[in-house]
Amino acid sequence: MKTKFRPSHADFTYFSKYGIRNWQGGGRASARETVGRVAAGAIAKKILNERFGVETLAYVKQVQRLIADVNPDKVRLKNIESNIVRCPDQTAAEKMIRLIEKMRRAGDTVGGIVEGIARGVPAGWGEPVFDKLEADLAKAMLSLPASKAFEVGSGFSGIALTGREHNDPFRARHGKVFTTTNFSGGIQGGISNGQTIFFRVAFKPVATVMHKQDTVDEEFHNTTLAGRGRHDPCVLPRAVPMVEAMTALVLVDHALRHKAQCG
Amino acid sequence: MKTKFRPSHADFTYFSKYGIRNWQGGGRASARETVGRVAAGAIAKKILNERFGVETLAYVKQVQRLIADVNPDKVRLKNIESNIVRCPDQTAAEKMIRLIEKMRRAGDTVGGIVEGIARGVPAGWGEPVFDKLEADLAKAMLSLPASKAFEVGSGFSGIALTGREHNDPFRARHGKVFTTTNFSGGIQGGISNGQTIFFRVAFKPVATVMHKQDTVDEEFHNTTLAGRGRHDPCVLPRAVPMVEAMTALVLVDHALRHKAQCG
Amino acid sequence: MKTKFRPSHADFTYFSKYGIRNWQGGGRASARETVGRVAAGAIAKKILNERFGVETLAYVKQVQRLIADVNPDKVRLKNIESNIVRCPDQTAAEKMIRLIEKMRRAGDTVGGIVEGIARGVPAGWGEPVFDKLEADLAKAMLSLPASKAFEVGSGFSGIALTGREHNDPFRARHGKVFTTTNFSGGIQGGISNGQTIFFRVAFKPVATVMHKQDTVDEEFHNTTLAGRGRHDPCVLPRAVPMVEAMTALVLVDHALRHKAQCG
Amino acid sequence: MKTKFRPSHADFTYFSKYGIRNWQGGGRASARETVGRVAAGAIAKKILNERFGVETLAYVKQVQRLIADVNPDKVRLKNIESNIVRCPDQTAAEKMIRLIEKMRRAGDTVGGIVEGIARGVPAGWGEPVFDKLEADLAKAMLSLPASKAFEVGSGFSGIALTGREHNDPFRARHGKVFTTTNFSGGIQGGISNGQTIFFRVAFKPVATVMHKQDTVDEEFHNTTLAGRGRHDPCVLPRAVPMVEAMTALVLVDHALRHKAQCG
Repeated sequence: MKTKFRPSHADFTYFSKYGIRNWQGGGRASARETVGRVAAGAIAKKILNERFGVETLAYVKQVQRLIADVNPDKVRLKNIESNIVRCPDQTAAEKMIRLIEKMRRAGDTVGGIVEGIARGVPAGWGEPVFDKLEADLAKAMLSLPASKAFEVGSGFSGIALTGREHNDPFRARHGKVFTTTNFSGGIQGGISNGQTIFFRVAFKPVATVMHKQDTVDEEFHNTTLAGRGRHDPCVLPRAVPMVEAMTALVLVDHALRHKAQCG
Repeated sequence: MKTKFRPSHADFTYFSKYGIRNWQGGGRASARETVGRVAAGAIAKKILNERFGVETLAYVKQVQRLIADVNPDKVRLKNIESNIVRCPDQTAAEKMIRLIEKMRRAGDTVGGIVEGIARGVPAGWGEPVFDKLEADLAKAMLSLPASKAFEVGSGFSGIALTGREHNDPFRARHGKVFTTTNFSGGIQGGISNGQTIFFRVAFKPVATVMHKQDTVDEEFHNTTLAGRGRHDPCVLPRAVPMVEAMTALVLVDHALRHKAQCG
Repeated sequence: MKTKFRPSHADFTYFSKYGIRNWQGGGRASARETVGRVAAGAIAKKILNERFGVETLAYVKQVQRLIADVNPDKVRLKNIESNIVRCPDQTAAEKMIRLIEKMRRAGDTVGGIVEGIARGVPAGWGEPVFDKLEADLAKAMLSLPASKAFEVGSGFSGIALTGREHNDPFRARHGKVFTTTNFSGGIQGGISNGQTIFFRVAFKPVATVMHKQDTVDEEFHNTTLAGRGRHDPCVLPRAVPMVEAMTALVLVDHALRHKAQCG
Repeated sequence: MKTKFRPSHADFTYFSKYGIRNWQGGGRASARETVGRVAAGAIAKKILNERFGVETLAYVKQVQRLIADVNPDKVRLKNIESNIVRCPDQTAAEKMIRLIEKMRRAGDTVGGIVEGIARGVPAGWGEPVFDKLEADLAKAMLSLPASKAFEVGSGFSGIALTGREHNDPFRARHGKVFTTTNFSGGIQGGISNGQTIFFRVAFKPVATVMHKQDTVDEEFHNTTLAGRGRHDPCVLPRAVPMVEAMTALVLVDHALRHKAQCG
């Protein structure tokens, strides 16, 4: 590993950019970097909760092809933390754990989806043009190691519907407006609409596998490399607090901006 | 429309935030806002092309369930601009046009996917932590009106694969490193790896439909609303230049940052 | 002027940086650039006045050695606008006008000092470390064309005093705190203290004079150059709205930041 | 001190803004905060020196009315560090030390001027409009604790001269352009001109004095307060590394920006 680039890792790109790399894995390409984000997120969550009554949560929604059944409007932290894979659907969680164990034994890895939610966000947070709420969430999520995709509300699946089917009808009760569906994921035109915000983030299977793979060395000769040592077959459970922290940080920034402009 | 909120439009959220709204549709929630982005993108494309030999393109990849067959490494601008739907697969383009015409007649709308690509980006552009190249692309794309999702490389579909299957093996030929697959979409750890960058952006079906839908008025009373006047059954063809422009703007920023640090 | 650099103008530095220059004078080095600042400042002043009861003003305090006698706590806009030199001390204003006319006839130029003030700023605006209120004001003022210096409160002259003499004693009356002197200029530790904010900005004598001066041409040969055409012997009266606008823009930014954090 | 506000200290403004204050003196209003700036500045100085051949220095130019005689083009670090007051004029330094000792015995304080210089900056660093080189230097200096004023080149004294006297004539020798005077302080129109950059920063006399002074307590009652404990009669010698660090940080930022745009 000292002289060979790990496939699909940040080894080669760091070397291309900086002329050096941290092959031991403790550099800025390590997910350890996110510890500061999680610490800051803890403060952001506290502000959101105490000042604005906003609750942010995240959980494992999918590991490879195993999909959990979760209601974003009802899920609670204790459900999420009730198992080591951080999936609130206990049946799916057991299957996920077995799949991850199987991957560990096979020296292989799997990816999946973390779903992030924010409940209690009032209508009005977000900016109309460049700093749309979904845009800042997307950047925050794609800045996490190993993430490859982001979708809010109906996301990619919404394109199977027509406009008539996809629109979220407004209704009012006791002077309070809500939507009867939530394909928008709680955000319309960059600004929260008062419904639950929810989005999904895809994390790829971990790059380091215990099998020989084609690669090149630092002198650009063809060679092979097999991972050794500590092996992490699935990052999803540990991505949950990262997603939650980044969600809280984005929201608290927009809470402040909203308060400055309209508070 | 003057007193009623269009479902899934920015009407209600703007009103919630600012206490006013531009019901005629010419405000900041209108996609007309992107004209400045496209103008700036034209300059960015010129710099990328002349200074760095980088080519950026975008095209319609999917309209509702109609998926085009396009090779990101070979597609050319003239293929994209050869039909009004801006889809380089002529067979798919014809079907898309027919579907959009059908939707227009039905007073309904459809969404789809625009794929963006950048060819010739050297290895090394991007930042290792918060301003990862994919993070800045994600924010740029989710800041476009009606966009709901972003994925780079294998994106959501990559989670069906294991690490062994998903890793992009490195090979070298004549002192030049390349990967034999490109699930990474040309970016690893936030930094370009020299392969073609490609990503997909989902645009939802347009909110304004010619059918009566449940909604509320400015006094929060339940009512219904049917769209009238100019009707746009699909934004995808016009989203193509927006995606292209934002891609070029993100890349030229990172080109400058890279040059400052490592040039 | 087309091929020769004007001494102490931005000609040579622009040419050094960009390889081109705008010798006709309409480029970004022209004070015409500030028109956008003044327009934005007009909105900022309105917000400051209507929402926060804050009034910003600026006036000519000094032209060359002619110093006006002005009380920052009492001066009013109509006093400032009552003469073409924008100096509220009418006696000094007349002398300044005569001096400027004399300079015009002599083909020479003079500089001076604009004083900026903000009344009614509540205690608490500003940030404790990098974005101190005086730091943002300093940057704003030094970004104006031809400005060379900034001082807040006692500024350079405060260093003649000892701490005992320079400290502003606090007193309270009817539950309201004030200081009996204002060497601090209304800001302590980066944050407004509720007293009148005042500062001075030095503008150098205009570089373009109607006399032959040593310079070099674009091929770096020694030559001489005398200004021709429109001649502006003193920028001070026109710097007044620039200083006022930048003051209002800095304050409205800090008003929003303060409201977000503590409002 | 626990319940009373120190006059001209950040006590009252912090309390006004945050509702709390750090009366022991270790908070963000303490000059200890600048330790991080000095550490970052050490790296910036290294980059400036090794990559660009730029040298940054700062020294005590004035303590109260004692003015040192220093040539900014020739002063060296070892002259500055040869005495504890960090003034390269040894005769003035001795008088300054005696004055500071006298102030310590009197329980009083004095302020002064630190001069900052940068030699070897090539023509072309800086931005033409908002981020003028002098604007960024001004903000950096006014963000330092106890600073009240900034002037570059001729600064406030330049306004005594007419344009003819103040302009810096250009001359060329062996294809290299220079100015025969340097009233501009090495910057014209926001951009460096290749001459030595020099500027002055005024630091007020320290607020904490060992004498009884009028003030108010946290309940806004009139009272008096005399400083006790550690007493610092003059911050100037310790402001020198702060000024030097901030100079280097501003310059290295502009070096990177220049390289990105024009390098």
